[in-house]
Amino acid sequence: MEFPADAFLPGPRVTIPGAVGGSLSDLTFAAKDLFDVAGHRTGGGNPDWAATHPVPTTHAWAVQALLGAGANLVGKTVTCEISLGILGFNAFDGTPPNPAAPGCLPGGSSSGSASAVAAGLCDIALGTDSGGSVRVPSSLCGLYGMRPSLGAVSMEGVCRQAPTYDTVGWFARDAATFARAAEVLLGTPLPAPEAAGLLVAEDAFAFADPDLADALRPAVARIGAFIGGATATSIAEPGELEVWASQRNILQRAESWQTFRGWIEAVNPRFGFNVARNLTMASSITSEQVALANVARRRVVERARLLLEGGALLCTPTTPFTAPPLGLPLSELDRYSARIGLLTSFAGLVGLPQISLPVATIGGKPAGLSLIGWRGADARLAAIAKALEANA
Amino acid sequence: MEFPADAFLPGPRVTIPGAVGGSLSDLTFAAKDLFDVAGHRTGGGNPDWAATHPVPTTHAWAVQALLGAGANLVGKTVTCEISLGILGFNAFDGTPPNPAAPGCLPGGSSSGSASAVAAGLCDIALGTDSGGSVRVPSSLCGLYGMRPSLGAVSMEGVCRQAPTYDTVGWFARDAATFARAAEVLLGTPLPAPEAAGLLVAEDAFAFADPDLADALRPAVARIGAFIGGATATSIAEPGELEVWASQRNILQRAESWQTFRGWIEAVNPRFGFNVARNLTMASSITSEQVALANVARRRVVERARLLLEGGALLCTPTTPFTAPPLGLPLSELDRYSARIGLLTSFAGLVGLPQISLPVATIGGKPAGLSLIGWRGADARLAAIAKALEANA
Repeated sequence: MEFPADAFLPGPRVTIPGAVGGSLSDLTFAAKDLFDVAGHRTGGGNPDWAATHPVPTTHAWAVQALLGAGANLVGKTVTCEISLGILGFNAFDGTPPNPAAPGCLPGGSSSGSASAVAAGLCDIALGTDSGGSVRVPSSLCGLYGMRPSLGAVSMEGVCRQAPTYDTVGWFARDAATFARAAEVLLGTPLPAPEAAGLLVAEDAFAFADPDLADALRPAVARIGAFIGGATATSIAEPGELEVWASQRNILQRAESWQTFRGWIEAVNPRFGFNVARNLTMASSITSEQVALANVARRRVVERARLLLEGGALLCTPTTPFTAPPLGLPLSELDRYSARIGLLTSFAGLVGLPQISLPVATIGGKPAGLSLIGWRGADARLAAIAKALEANA
Repeated sequence: MEFPADAFLPGPRVTIPGAVGGSLSDLTFAAKDLFDVAGHRTGGGNPDWAATHPVPTTHAWAVQALLGAGANLVGKTVTCEISLGILGFNAFDGTPPNPAAPGCLPGGSSSGSASAVAAGLCDIALGTDSGGSVRVPSSLCGLYGMRPSLGAVSMEGVCRQAPTYDTVGWFARDAATFARAAEVLLGTPLPAPEAAGLLVAEDAFAFADPDLADALRPAVARIGAFIGGATATSIAEPGELEVWASQRNILQRAESWQTFRGWIEAVNPRFGFNVARNLTMASSITSEQVALANVARRRVVERARLLLEGGALLCTPTTPFTAPPLGLPLSELDRYSARIGLLTSFAGLVGLPQISLPVATIGGKPAGLSLIGWRGADARLAAIAKALEANA
C-alpha cells in the first residue's frame, strides 16, 4: 500500500541561501532527510526516529559544502525509513512521484531527492547510497547520480546505516550541473575525461530485462568509442554474482542491525512491515555468516582490482528494469528489490565509485547505464559524463 | 517507548443505548476495538487495519447480546495492534493507564477494556483472549475477567487472530456484575457454585514471583475450604510447562500468520517493531514445527482431561508478577511476555475456561488468582466467583 507524497517533506520548506558569490550560486539544491540541517529535526523518514533524536545544531558536511559554494537549499526530501528500502515507498511519509514515469515508483531510498530533481524543483539533490539508494532512483527517474568511492565524501552529520557501505551521493538532470557539484563535493577539479578502455559486463547485462539491455547498447557503443574501445567481459564466474549479492546482503544487513539495534531496543519504533521484517532477519545473522561473507567480499575486491585498477571502466545496467508500477503486493516488491541487488552489490562490496547515466528509455520509462571505476575515479567518472554530454 | 492514552479511543465516543427493560439496563459497557459496532470503523489498534477494512454494518454478536440485554455501550477501547501483545502498550494508540497500579502497564491486548473498567468508566467491558489477553489485564488491573471455553461465546464480528485460541471474554470490578454478564454472554443461568475439589498447581505457583505466590495463598485456602478441600498437584512433569508454553507459542503464532499474511502482503502495514518482528518470526515456522507442536498439544489435552474432566478446578497464579513499570526497553518487555506464557498456555492449548479473581495486592499492586475448569465449566466458574464474593 503506497500513498502519494511530495518529493519534499510536508510542512514549511527548509530553505537556506548559499554563500554569496560562490561557484554554485545559480543553483538550488535539496537534501535527503538523513542530512542534518542546523535548527531542523532530521526525520530519517520515520516518526519515531524524528521524535527520539535531538535537533542538530550544525549542518551535515555535504550540506555545508554546497551552501559554502553558493548553492541555495530549497528543501529536505522524503527518504525510505532510516535509509532501508530501494524502491522508494515509505509507509509514513508516502511515495514521492516519479516525474519520468508517472504511476511508477521513484526508487529509493533517496526517493524524494531524485523526485525533486526530476521534477525540476531543484538543480541538485543530496542522497545517500549504501546498497544502491542513489544509483537506483537515478536509473528509475532518468537522472545523473553517483555513489562515490567509500569515504570520498564525508558522512559527517548524516544518519549512518552500514558504515562500510555508506556514501553521500547526489543527483542532477544534466551532466554539466552534476560535474559542478562533483567538484565541490569531491573537493577536486575535474580531470581529463579519459579511461583505459571500457569493459562491458556481459554477465551483469544478462540480469537485465532484454529490452532494457538492448536499449542501453547504443550508449555502450558510443562510450566505448569515446574512451578508446569496448571489450566484452564478465565480472565474475558463472553463478557468482548471485552469491556476491547474497553475501553483500548479509554483510550490509548485519552492519545495519548493529547501527540501529540500540535505538530499536530502547524505543520499539514503528516501521512499515517490510522494514521491521528485514531488520528482524538482520538480527538473526550469525558471526559465522558474517565471517563467511567477508571471505566472499575479499574475493570480490581481488576481482575488482584485476579488472579496474589499471584505469579501465566497467559498464553495467544500473537497474535490471525500469520503474515498477505503484500498488504491487509485498512479495512482488521483494522480487524487484532482490533483482536490484544483483547489479548494485559489486561497487558496494568493493567501495567503488559508480555513476549512472540516463541514456535510454524503454516504453517511455528511463533506464540508466552505469560506469564503475577503481577507488578514487569519482571525478573522472563525472568528467567523462560531462564530456559525453557535450559531444552528444 | 510508551506514550499515554485514554482507555477509550480518541475522538467522539461510540455510544448506543441498550434495549429498554433488559436485565442489564442499569449497566454500562465498553468494547475492545476488535469488536464490530455497526456504522463505526473497527480499528484493531492499527491505523492501516482501520484504513483497509470496511465499516461494519452489523454489531458483533457479543455487542448485540449485551445491548439486547439492556446494557448501554459507552465506548470502544484501545487494544494492542491486531490483538498481538500481552503487556498493553501500543505504538500508535498509546498505553491506557492502569488505574490499580499507576505508572505501570495495564496488560493486554484488551488493555483499554481493563483500564476502563478499573477506572470506573463502565461496569463491564468486552475483550478477546487468545494467549491471555483478558486474563493478564484482569490480573494486572485487579479485575474479574474470564477466558471462556473455546467456542462458548461467538466470535462473530470480532477480528480473528488464531482460530483455535480465539475467545471473547469480559471484565468487571465485582463478581456479581461479572456473573450477570456471564448469564447473558454464555446464554445460561448460573449453576450451583460447586466443584469436585480444588487442585493447587504447585508447578505453576513456582513460576510466580515468591511474594506474589505467597500473597495468593490465603485466597487459595479460602477457595479450597469453600469447594471442599484443596489438593497440591502438578499440571505437568518437571520442565514440561516450559515446553508446552513454547509449543503453544509456535501453534498460536503459526495460526496468526495464516490469519494476517494476506493482509500484510497486500498492504505492507505499519507496526510497532515488536509486532512486526513477532509476525516475521511466525512466518518462518515450518509445517514440521507445527506437526510436532500438535503432538505436544495432544499430550496437554490428555493431561487436562485427567485432572479436570471429573469436575475439579485447577488454581494457578494468573500472572507471575504484578504490573511492570512503564518505560522498559524491548528486551525486558520480551522477558515479561515470555514469563506470562508459562501460565497462560495450559488453558489456551486445551480450550479451557479460566477466570481470574482479584484476590491480592503486593506492594499496592493487584495480582489475580485463576480457576481453570474443564470445557463448559464457564458458568460454574462465574457462579463460584460470585458466591466467594458474597461469602467474603
